[in-house]
Amino acid sequence: MQRIGIGLIGSGFMGRSHAIAFRAVSGIFSDISATPVLEILADIDAPAAERAAGALGFARSTADWHALIADPAVHLVDITTPNRLHKPMALAAIAAGKHVYCEKPLAPTAADAHEMADAAEAAGVQTFVGFSYLKNPMIAFAHEVIDSGEIGEVVSFRGLHAEDYMADPTQPWTWRMDPAGGHGAIADIGSHILSIARYLCGDIVEVSGQIATVVPERRTAGGETTQVLVDDQARALLRFASGATGSVEASWVATGRKMTIAFEVTGTKGTLAFDQERMNEVQLYVAGQRRGREGFKTILSGPAHPHYAPFCPAPGHHLGFNDMKTIEVRAILASLSGGLAFQPDFREAARIQATVDAIVASARERRWVSL
Amino acid sequence: MQRIGIGLIGSGFMGRSHAIAFRAVSGIFSDISATPVLEILADIDAPAAERAAGALGFARSTADWHALIADPAVHLVDITTPNRLHKPMALAAIAAGKHVYCEKPLAPTAADAHEMADAAEAAGVQTFVGFSYLKNPMIAFAHEVIDSGEIGEVVSFRGLHAEDYMADPTQPWTWRMDPAGGHGAIADIGSHILSIARYLCGDIVEVSGQIATVVPERRTAGGETTQVLVDDQARALLRFASGATGSVEASWVATGRKMTIAFEVTGTKGTLAFDQERMNEVQLYVAGQRRGREGFKTILSGPAHPHYAPFCPAPGHHLGFNDMKTIEVRAILASLSGGLAFQPDFREAARIQATVDAIVASARERRWVSL
Amino acid sequence: MQRIGIGLIGSGFMGRSHAIAFRAVSGIFSDISATPVLEILADIDAPAAERAAGALGFARSTADWHALIADPAVHLVDITTPNRLHKPMALAAIAAGKHVYCEKPLAPTAADAHEMADAAEAAGVQTFVGFSYLKNPMIAFAHEVIDSGEIGEVVSFRGLHAEDYMADPTQPWTWRMDPAGGHGAIADIGSHILSIARYLCGDIVEVSGQIATVVPERRTAGGETTQVLVDDQARALLRFASGATGSVEASWVATGRKMTIAFEVTGTKGTLAFDQERMNEVQLYVAGQRRGREGFKTILSGPAHPHYAPFCPAPGHHLGFNDMKTIEVRAILASLSGGLAFQPDFREAARIQATVDAIVASARERRWVSL
Amino acid sequence: MQRIGIGLIGSGFMGRSHAIAFRAVSGIFSDISATPVLEILADIDAPAAERAAGALGFARSTADWHALIADPAVHLVDITTPNRLHKPMALAAIAAGKHVYCEKPLAPTAADAHEMADAAEAAGVQTFVGFSYLKNPMIAFAHEVIDSGEIGEVVSFRGLHAEDYMADPTQPWTWRMDPAGGHGAIADIGSHILSIARYLCGDIVEVSGQIATVVPERRTAGGETTQVLVDDQARALLRFASGATGSVEASWVATGRKMTIAFEVTGTKGTLAFDQERMNEVQLYVAGQRRGREGFKTILSGPAHPHYAPFCPAPGHHLGFNDMKTIEVRAILASLSGGLAFQPDFREAARIQATVDAIVASARERRWVSL
Repeated sequence: MQRIGIGLIGSGFMGRSHAIAFRAVSGIFSDISATPVLEILADIDAPAAERAAGALGFARSTADWHALIADPAVHLVDITTPNRLHKPMALAAIAAGKHVYCEKPLAPTAADAHEMADAAEAAGVQTFVGFSYLKNPMIAFAHEVIDSGEIGEVVSFRGLHAEDYMADPTQPWTWRMDPAGGHGAIADIGSHILSIARYLCGDIVEVSGQIATVVPERRTAGGETTQVLVDDQARALLRFASGATGSVEASWVATGRKMTIAFEVTGTKGTLAFDQERMNEVQLYVAGQRRGREGFKTILSGPAHPHYAPFCPAPGHHLGFNDMKTIEVRAILASLSGGLAFQPDFREAARIQATVDAIVASARERRWVSL
Repeated sequence: MQRIGIGLIGSGFMGRSHAIAFRAVSGIFSDISATPVLEILADIDAPAAERAAGALGFARSTADWHALIADPAVHLVDITTPNRLHKPMALAAIAAGKHVYCEKPLAPTAADAHEMADAAEAAGVQTFVGFSYLKNPMIAFAHEVIDSGEIGEVVSFRGLHAEDYMADPTQPWTWRMDPAGGHGAIADIGSHILSIARYLCGDIVEVSGQIATVVPERRTAGGETTQVLVDDQARALLRFASGATGSVEASWVATGRKMTIAFEVTGTKGTLAFDQERMNEVQLYVAGQRRGREGFKTILSGPAHPHYAPFCPAPGHHLGFNDMKTIEVRAILASLSGGLAFQPDFREAARIQATVDAIVASARERRWVSL
Repeated sequence: MQRIGIGLIGSGFMGRSHAIAFRAVSGIFSDISATPVLEILADIDAPAAERAAGALGFARSTADWHALIADPAVHLVDITTPNRLHKPMALAAIAAGKHVYCEKPLAPTAADAHEMADAAEAAGVQTFVGFSYLKNPMIAFAHEVIDSGEIGEVVSFRGLHAEDYMADPTQPWTWRMDPAGGHGAIADIGSHILSIARYLCGDIVEVSGQIATVVPERRTAGGETTQVLVDDQARALLRFASGATGSVEASWVATGRKMTIAFEVTGTKGTLAFDQERMNEVQLYVAGQRRGREGFKTILSGPAHPHYAPFCPAPGHHLGFNDMKTIEVRAILASLSGGLAFQPDFREAARIQATVDAIVASARERRWVSL
Repeated sequence: MQRIGIGLIGSGFMGRSHAIAFRAVSGIFSDISATPVLEILADIDAPAAERAAGALGFARSTADWHALIADPAVHLVDITTPNRLHKPMALAAIAAGKHVYCEKPLAPTAADAHEMADAAEAAGVQTFVGFSYLKNPMIAFAHEVIDSGEIGEVVSFRGLHAEDYMADPTQPWTWRMDPAGGHGAIADIGSHILSIARYLCGDIVEVSGQIATVVPERRTAGGETTQVLVDDQARALLRFASGATGSVEASWVATGRKMTIAFEVTGTKGTLAFDQERMNEVQLYVAGQRRGREGFKTILSGPAHPHYAPFCPAPGHHLGFNDMKTIEVRAILASLSGGLAFQPDFREAARIQATVDAIVASARERRWVSL
């Protein structure tokens, strides 16, 4: 079996999550045709890198991500660093002929992201972007339901990604608020719901946006007060290429909401609703039910849904967050060994980022912006 | 006790609902200081008027609403006809010195509505608009929670009114689609969620709207096909005078949704969420809960909430749709007998209508519109 | 139209609720063939009786319930007093040839209840017992679903009535704890869930019960401490005549539960679940759904369900507690004017009471008890 | 670091789940002091064993479980075979001085289970039983809440384990119905809810049981019809040593229910409710809330709850079924390397089994049975 050497840059939340997935994937999926080998873990802090490499099972560690990219044992460079570092790292990896797996949002701007996609396409390497929530079996199921026409022609999409990790004004400034890394909530989490909107309903061709910075100043780690230059919450009206219309909202100051990625897709013959806070459920309504028996069904995830069965042969047992990453990694390995091409790649991520940029531009310029 | 002679115009869904409320109110509320007397019911169809008057307990019936207004026994003219008739009827009633109770939306345009409010103010008569859902104890409770600062300063309002009574394209054209009566879903049901937005969060000063006609043609009762000139669904971004931002959506083609009037108000210290499909519940989250115990509370309506106790001394027993109308009617009677002035009156309804108009203008002109 | 003179004994929660229903019924239901006339209201306290009569619209009041029964204008004696008074009042009314409407539980014991039923049958008067929750359209709908075989043959019933009005140990002793009125939670609220069990699944032929007094002593209104001699919570295993098995639980010390009357009926081809805290919803699962689309439907009450349409022509608008009483009263009037015989009558209430008694006996004697 | 050689017997649902957990545990938990080494996988079918060993990462495979036990590289014998094989395998492993990890239910009868516990204690080996659901962070959290007195003194426990994998009467007979392996639904899944009842509320001292075989005959794999000798559904009334009372129900014919392990624990000062179909949530009500704000909180699992943080640093992201097994395996490794002793061990599993046996005996003998 083909062996794929993994070089992981970053050992935070996402770095660990990727490593956990690479370790799990071959035990879960008996059909993978490539085996990930955990070669090197890079972290800016050498002792941290060493500790993480040991804990997560990497063969070696380094504080120098250039060395990681240059290492001949590394076939896939996996980037889980703050956003502003994605581009230089990815370009270096591409230049070295390596495939690249990068966390979202891909880059500070769509221009950057498209440049990265161009480079990868020119170099002939594959690219993979970690929009974890797309890999939930219930999202794949939603895609099947919509794609098959089961709820008719889509007429409306309403999407929301709401969390509250920045709701407390005493919460300190972090790299997520660094404008060098891009926009705020609309990029950090809004990109998730936009990735879902595009996956389920296709291209977005026009937006009218609104952004707001709710907490204008925050304390930095160093104790100083700094102005917040990115949005805490954002909303947009959407028009899809299909003619459907909709809206999207992102907020990291949504007090009380922990992981709300919720959407409702209304079609001419039915409606499908989902909320990540109950990620193993979909609500489905189909028109034409018997009189007095009309209602939304609560469908629990199970082996009838994509990707679920290898985790568990019985319905209702639940997958968790890390399982979505395992599904993601499995799709990457399949793509690398000649199977179905992975989505979203850098190009698709650039289109998502272009939608983020358009929302911000629309909000700033107070006009509809076309894509 | 003061007796208020009621003249009801219209005997459809709302006409019946008003009559039921007038019959119920004195049995429920022992504190009312005016007694409604069901004097005359008018309907365009004389036999229907007579039947309805008999069934609902009116003393007399007529096919001539002018006669109803002119009748000296009528103190309050209650208008539940299609929208385009509201203005001539209300102006006639006001000219006759009668108080007026009118169903929403008040008028085809804000200009009409303000003209009606001007006339009423000049004549010194009281006006009452039937935004039923505002009278739900849980909405009054939401107002209390927000007004008291319990969830801090409001930073976001997201509102939705979704039903599916026009989702089926074979559903025939009705007076609700008559542009002479005003706009479509945004006026017919969008006005409800806008009335709630204003009640809870104050003035809306700017909107960016989007409207769509999903079913472009419908069959009339006469069997002909006619073009639909009003919106089936509409959305808008909102900016409030307070500085809060938000969004609103209305759809009467929301397949599967029967009575979703849902909103979420996020404040700096908490969040309150509601859905009319579970009208006896509010979800409330308050920041600062003990670690590991953070969560939204499901609060069931009960005697601790406004207006509930006279219906039932115990919590969780549920009020229904008609009970909201009884609360509305009680507030009208109180206002008429010198108590707290009723809201929303024609002026407030005109402001709601102005927001509807602004959303439609914004959508058509593709720009933000100020109010 | 036939006029039915109503004599109401008691002006508490239930007295008011009955009066509200009698006032509402003819406005809601255009098909009633008898009109209730509110003749006399009796309450032990003469001024209270007078005030209540005024507020609720009764022509006269009295402190003497014997006088009420004797009054020739009274055709229906309506008893809403504490339980221990039901029997003497009902027997007196029956002796006077009056029809009787009585709140549940009907009597302290099944023997008493059967004696009352015997007397009524001998006298040829009609009897009506106020098991309000049976009149919820969603319960009638559940009955239809089960009766039609839509969920196959019933194999299991699990029922619960849980409230917390006695959970606080400082809550004073009330007449509900008076053993002269019968048992505790199992009678006061357990009778509701037992009435539903019987309505949906038929006769219960055998029980194994368990009762517990959680708060052994309570303060009386007079400030003294008295021993609690009735149960605070009770449970039973059930065997139905049909062969189905099940369980039932009642508790008035169920901290946090305000109006949980919840049940799940499992059949060989489907399952139906309900909770009165969401009284306008039913959960329905039917076997044989398409693979991957299996799920419980949430069905909102609407005009397709029994008794709903006269309240509102649109689904999802909600009925409330008092509306169930209006439905009850309508069925009483129909029965009195020669229509469908009302259920539950005294005989059925006696059978419900017999089940209560059997559960208590079983618990005390620690053995299965047959019915 | 200590290395623990794992010998896994069985490669079905549970065998795979154990292997997945052993592979994942060191990546998730950085604090483990022992490393599992996947030495041998045994399956009755040699080629299947070889395939599974390859897929799951075991060094070797065998068709002979005796050889597995005898292998000096195996320190922990992990048994995931049908129930009737648990005892001979465990006794052989114990005789060989090996620690034993066994799936539930431990043995066909409590006598067998106690014999196994006796043998292990005599041999000085550790034992571990796979009651997966106990390892859910929300169950550990529930234990904390109850144990700390946060909801006062427990007065009621109501538990349910309902699935529908045997609801279809055409579903063939399986080893789960083999009386040589023990009882039916009450053992197979009832043992789960009993394990939770004991974990949260302590010893059960008395039961009154009821069992039913809903589908009396099933087809075997060989196509013959065989009588079903075990229960399809069972219920029991419970009395706890603490004085609390309660009930428990188990059904594998609960049409529509996929993984309902639901319970409600009522205390004198609060109530906690849980349903495994929403395994990342707990409902918590605490008495003494501010008037009008009383309600159950929906608490989402997060890093504030036991065992969650190593999977994900943020709340609301969800753990899944396999994650519970990883937590279980981590606790086993900790126990083996001298840390906190694992529960439930064979002795506790024997007590759970004794409760199962008592329910069945009570049902058959129609009397309360003490434990």
